[in-house]
Amino acid sequence: LQDHASHATPAINPKNKTLVVFSGDLDKALAAFIIANGAAAMGSHVTMFFTFWGINILRRNERVSVAKTIVERMFGWMMPRGATRLGLSKMNMAGMGAAMIRGIMRKKNVASLPELIATARQAGVRLVVCSMSMDLMGIQREELIAGIEEGGVATYLDSAEAGSVNLFI
Amino acid sequence: LQDHASHATPAINPKNKTLVVFSGDLDKALAAFIIANGAAAMGSHVTMFFTFWGINILRRNERVSVAKTIVERMFGWMMPRGATRLGLSKMNMAGMGAAMIRGIMRKKNVASLPELIATARQAGVRLVVCSMSMDLMGIQREELIAGIEEGGVATYLDSAEAGSVNLFI
Amino acid sequence: LQDHASHATPAINPKNKTLVVFSGDLDKALAAFIIANGAAAMGSHVTMFFTFWGINILRRNERVSVAKTIVERMFGWMMPRGATRLGLSKMNMAGMGAAMIRGIMRKKNVASLPELIATARQAGVRLVVCSMSMDLMGIQREELIAGIEEGGVATYLDSAEAGSVNLFI
Repeated sequence: LQDHASHATPAINPKNKTLVVFSGDLDKALAAFIIANGAAAMGSHVTMFFTFWGINILRRNERVSVAKTIVERMFGWMMPRGATRLGLSKMNMAGMGAAMIRGIMRKKNVASLPELIATARQAGVRLVVCSMSMDLMGIQREELIAGIEEGGVATYLDSAEAGSVNLFI
Repeated sequence: LQDHASHATPAINPKNKTLVVFSGDLDKALAAFIIANGAAAMGSHVTMFFTFWGINILRRNERVSVAKTIVERMFGWMMPRGATRLGLSKMNMAGMGAAMIRGIMRKKNVASLPELIATARQAGVRLVVCSMSMDLMGIQREELIAGIEEGGVATYLDSAEAGSVNLFI
Repeated sequence: LQDHASHATPAINPKNKTLVVFSGDLDKALAAFIIANGAAAMGSHVTMFFTFWGINILRRNERVSVAKTIVERMFGWMMPRGATRLGLSKMNMAGMGAAMIRGIMRKKNVASLPELIATARQAGVRLVVCSMSMDLMGIQREELIAGIEEGGVATYLDSAEAGSVNLFI
């Protein structure tokens, strides 16, 4: 298992970090961005790969008018539109739990998720959205915040192989 | 923390990838197999270690007659029997969400989960099922699709230590 | 991406393992401690970083009288008080599922979660609780089992960068 002479072994650098952000829950998104921003502040190159429910984190808050099938429109309605609308993975209680956490964060002067996303971008964290997930869920580029890279599993794997801190969130 | 002279340091190869598949949700299973198959196609040795709910992904679709305790029988009934019956981790709506996603995937000619599993096997992805989970949930070998390896936490750790892309899904 | 000459590259040792324990579900906590204890038994240095719901795993079972705001008190009530009260991530059925799993584990002489935690401590597994999560959820040190280290994202990242088996559970 250890050695495959037939393939060049890429160099591994622990300062390269790649997070798959599969979840679209507020609590997990916060964890992902806190780790990403902490790592960037400590000199790491961080790639976040948003897939499945995770792409909702990158949606614009405002409704965007794009052509969609009925099923795509339904998915678009049912899924949260952006970082300010995400629920909690536990104790969400129809959004009350998420509102409580947001309130506590404000009171304690902890950066909100939109602020964490802005910091990540300023710090050069690479934000990549999974093309296949967008296609499956009928989310289009115009519906996402600007400046997000698009990529597939190969993009993810190239980034993951270059580092040793790889998480699936 | 960095150095333990008392233990031989195994070589780390980023082309060795090990995924713990803990979840038995359709969406997470799809993510796991898409990563596994992508990696295999790019020359990686991939091990998938199925534990807890993840073992349901490997169950045969058909009912298999085996001796079980009442509790084991209950677990067997309540848990999904195989890749075609898994639900979504979010928006499952009693299976409607999962059916919608399966419909979209068919329409867009995206490989289904059973197809992804077949591809993984052809590509030599190593599929290991956790013995302890099988024991706890009362799932027996005859109930799983053929050709799955059985292993424990040591099997998992040996594989994980040989690589740098380690995910818990 | 591969090389950042400006930062010293820390040595990576696969025998250093770092688990983020984000979840407070019984099944995921069991998985985390089984991996941690298995790794420690095989000569690894293991760090578990408990954040968000994961900090509930470390709460004392008994009520601890501390000064709290009303919101903190509500969170404290709604979240499970310690390892013996956690629910399952799936099929919890108001605690019945968790009770069933605990019953099966007892019957099969599988170590319970409190026993696994005790083993981890004896084996020198480093248990770190996230300061920010404690602050947000209003959980105080007196409410946690004794001897837990407190740390932030930098503590986590230092540990993660030293190894190649990094999981988010």
